[in-house]
Amino acid sequence: MRMYDIIKKKRDGGTLTAEEIRFWIEGYVRGEIPDYQVSALCMAIYYRGMNASETTDLTLAIRDSGDRLDFSAIHGVRVDKHSTGGVGDKTSLVVAPIVACLGARVAKMSGRGLGHTGGTIDKLESIAGFRTDIGGEEFIRIVNENGIAIVGQTASLAPADKLLYALRDVTATVDSMPLIASSIMGKKLAADDDCIVLDVKTGSGAFMKTVEESRALAELMVEIGCRAGKKMRALITDMDRPLGAAIGNSLEVIEAIETLKGDGPADLTEVCLALATHMLVISGHGDEETCRADIRRVIENGEALATFARMVGVQGGAPAWIYDTGLFPKAAYTYTVSAPRDGYITRADAEGYGIASLLLGAGRNTKEDKIDYAAGIRLAAKTGDYVRKGDPLATLYANDERLFAPAEARLLAATEIGAELPAARPLILDIVE
Amino acid sequence: MRMYDIIKKKRDGGTLTAEEIRFWIEGYVRGEIPDYQVSALCMAIYYRGMNASETTDLTLAIRDSGDRLDFSAIHGVRVDKHSTGGVGDKTSLVVAPIVACLGARVAKMSGRGLGHTGGTIDKLESIAGFRTDIGGEEFIRIVNENGIAIVGQTASLAPADKLLYALRDVTATVDSMPLIASSIMGKKLAADDDCIVLDVKTGSGAFMKTVEESRALAELMVEIGCRAGKKMRALITDMDRPLGAAIGNSLEVIEAIETLKGDGPADLTEVCLALATHMLVISGHGDEETCRADIRRVIENGEALATFARMVGVQGGAPAWIYDTGLFPKAAYTYTVSAPRDGYITRADAEGYGIASLLLGAGRNTKEDKIDYAAGIRLAAKTGDYVRKGDPLATLYANDERLFAPAEARLLAATEIGAELPAARPLILDIVE
Repeated sequence: MRMYDIIKKKRDGGTLTAEEIRFWIEGYVRGEIPDYQVSALCMAIYYRGMNASETTDLTLAIRDSGDRLDFSAIHGVRVDKHSTGGVGDKTSLVVAPIVACLGARVAKMSGRGLGHTGGTIDKLESIAGFRTDIGGEEFIRIVNENGIAIVGQTASLAPADKLLYALRDVTATVDSMPLIASSIMGKKLAADDDCIVLDVKTGSGAFMKTVEESRALAELMVEIGCRAGKKMRALITDMDRPLGAAIGNSLEVIEAIETLKGDGPADLTEVCLALATHMLVISGHGDEETCRADIRRVIENGEALATFARMVGVQGGAPAWIYDTGLFPKAAYTYTVSAPRDGYITRADAEGYGIASLLLGAGRNTKEDKIDYAAGIRLAAKTGDYVRKGDPLATLYANDERLFAPAEARLLAATEIGAELPAARPLILDIVE
Repeated sequence: MRMYDIIKKKRDGGTLTAEEIRFWIEGYVRGEIPDYQVSALCMAIYYRGMNASETTDLTLAIRDSGDRLDFSAIHGVRVDKHSTGGVGDKTSLVVAPIVACLGARVAKMSGRGLGHTGGTIDKLESIAGFRTDIGGEEFIRIVNENGIAIVGQTASLAPADKLLYALRDVTATVDSMPLIASSIMGKKLAADDDCIVLDVKTGSGAFMKTVEESRALAELMVEIGCRAGKKMRALITDMDRPLGAAIGNSLEVIEAIETLKGDGPADLTEVCLALATHMLVISGHGDEETCRADIRRVIENGEALATFARMVGVQGGAPAWIYDTGLFPKAAYTYTVSAPRDGYITRADAEGYGIASLLLGAGRNTKEDKIDYAAGIRLAAKTGDYVRKGDPLATLYANDERLFAPAEARLLAATEIGAELPAARPLILDIVE
C-alpha cells in the first residue's frame, strides 16, 4: 500500500477502505508518512468529501492512535456532553453536576480554549488549587466515589488528531465536515462513555455558521457514535450571540454557580436544562418529563450545587468559593461600555464579543499564552433589549487598564443598535437523534 | 502576506495575483514555505485550475527562481524545440542540425530520460567523448562558430521547478494543466530563445492521453510563451505508438543519422520535417513551402548530416561515428521477438514498449540508475503491418541475456494482433499558433 495511491484515489473521487485509512493514520503517527502527503490528502478530502463509513473509519483510526481509556471499573451509566465551542458557553459546569447528582456517572475530559472560544479546563482552573491533571486509577476512583470528575485530556489521547489538526490549521483544510466530525469524535470515542450528548453550536461565534451545516455535522457525528456503539443525541443550539451574560473564566464559573442555584440567565438556563435532560434520557433515567422534573428538584433543593462544590473539593479547590463567589480574585480594574445611541440591540456578534474578551486577557491567541482568570466581560444588555444612549452595555474586567480601549472598540463593532425589535431566534434550533 | 491565505483563496476558487504567486515560489525556494503548504496549494490548483494570466505569472516566477541565461551575444535568430516526451522520440537530433545548417541558431539545453521516456542528453552521450556539460561563454562561442550546441540543463536553471515537480510527484498533483504548462515553460523561458516550437505528444505513451488534453496544454503553453515575448508554435503529434523503429540510446542516434541522410522511417521523417519547417517559419526563414524545399535540399546534399557530425566533433565526440554507425559499441546479445499469431498489428502501446526498453537497461527508473547505451529495441513491424506467426516483431539488444524474458513479455503484452487492419491515425494531429 502506498500513500500516493491513497491520495490519488481520493483525488479522483474514490472511497477509501478502512485499511487505507488505517495505513494513513498509523503511518502518519509513526512519522513514516510526511506532512506534505497528508496535507494534499486533506485538501482532496476537502473537495471530494468522505461518506459516513469512511468518516467512521477515520474516527476509529484517530481514536486508536493513542491510549484508549477503560472506564469499565466505573459503576453505573457513563454519560458525556461535548460542545463544539462557543462564547460564554459554560454549560458543562452546570450540566455535569446536575446529571451526576441524579445518578449518571460523569468521567469528563475537557479541553482548553483557543482563539475566541473558552475551554472548560481553563474555567475550572480559575478556582485556586483545582487539579485537572488527574488520570488513571485516581480518576476512576473519584468518579466511583463522587459520581463526577472533570479533568484535562492527556497528551496520549488521540495523538493523530493533534497532528492532523495542527496541519489542517496551516493548510486551509479545517473546514471539512468529515475531518471536523472525525476530529471531535475520535477524541470522544477514546474515552469510554456509554452515552454522549453533542451540543453543536451554530451562528457567527461557532465553527458552523448556518443551521444546515450544523445539522449535517450533528447527523454525521451521531451516526459515527452509533456505529461505534454509543447512545447518541445532538442538540443544535444558537451561538450567534454569547450564551449567558458572562464571558471570561472566573466570571463564567460564577455564572454557572448562579445557574446551579436557579438564578442564572434565562438563555443559559434553557440550554443547560435541555442538555441535562437529554443526557439523562439517553442514560435511561426516564422520559423527558421525569428528567426535567428531577433536574428542577436538584436545582431547587441545592443538591446540584452541592455536587459541584464536592467536586471542587475533591479535585483540590476550596468548596467555600462555590458558596461565596466573592472569594474569587477580582480584576484590578473595571470599565463600563455605554450604549452609543437609543434603540434595540439587534445584534451582539458572539465572535466579536469573544475576541473582546480575549483582548482583555481572558483567552489565548497561541497555546503558549497565559490566561488572566479574572478578566472578561459581563453583559448588562442582550440582543432584543432596548437601551438608551449612555445606558451600560457591558462591564469589562482587566488587570491592565490599557486593554479597555481595544476591547471596547471590538465590542462596539460587534454590537448593532437599531430602531426595530429584532425577530426572536430560538436557542435550541434542532435535536438530532 | 501569508501562505495560508493564498491556499484558502485558491481553495475557494479565487484568482491569485502575481504578487501572491511570487511570494509562494520565492518563499518555497528559500525554504521559508514548507512542503505541506505547497502540496495543499497544488491540490487546490488541481481542482480549481488557474487562468492563463495566473499560469503565466507562475511560469515567470519559476523562470526567475534561478539563473536566467543571456543569449544576446549569439548572432542570429535563436530557435528551440521542446517535446513533452515520448518513446523513440529522437526528433531533436534530426531537427536541430537541419535548422542550424539553414541559418537558425540552436543553443539547446536538453534533459535526461526518466521512466519509460528517453532524454536527448542520454542519447548524445552514447557517442563516446560527447560533452554535455558545456555552459557559459564556451556555449555561446560554440553556437556562434558552429550554429548549434546541445548541452545539459544546469542545476541552477529554474530550481523552483525541480522542487515543485518532486513534491507533485509524490502528492498526486502532477496531472494539472497549469502546473504542467508552467513547469515546462518555466524551464524553457529561463533560456533565452527568440522562437520555440513545442511538440506536444498525445496518446498512451505521452503525458496527455487525449488530443483534447494535448491541444489545451499546447494552447496554454503557446499563450504563456507569447505573453513572455516569444514566437511560439505547437504541434500535437501522435505518441500512441513509438516514433520510428529504434528505442534506446545509441539505436536512436543511429536512426537519427539515417533520417538526416533521408533514409529514416517514414513516421519519424514526417514529424521531423514538420517540426523543422515550423521552427524555420517562425524564425523568419520563409514560408512553409520554401522551408520544406530547403530542408529536403540539405538532407539530400548531406549538409544536415555534416552539421550534426561537426557538432559531435566540436562537443568532443568522433565525427567518424556519424559517417560509420558501425563504430557505435554493440550490445553483447540480441534476441528476436516473434509474432505469436497471424494478423495485423492493431496496437503497439508506446508506454509498454518504453518500459520493455527500460527493462533491457536503456533507461532509468530512478535518477541514480546507470544507462546501458547499446541496449534497446528495434522494431521489425509497426502498427498496421500484417505479420504471420513466427515473423519477427522486434529485435531486442542487451548486455545481459536474462533481461530478454521480462522485456519480451512486456513488449508482447503491449502488442495487439487482430484480423482487421486498424484505422490509420494521423501523425500530426493539430497545429496551434
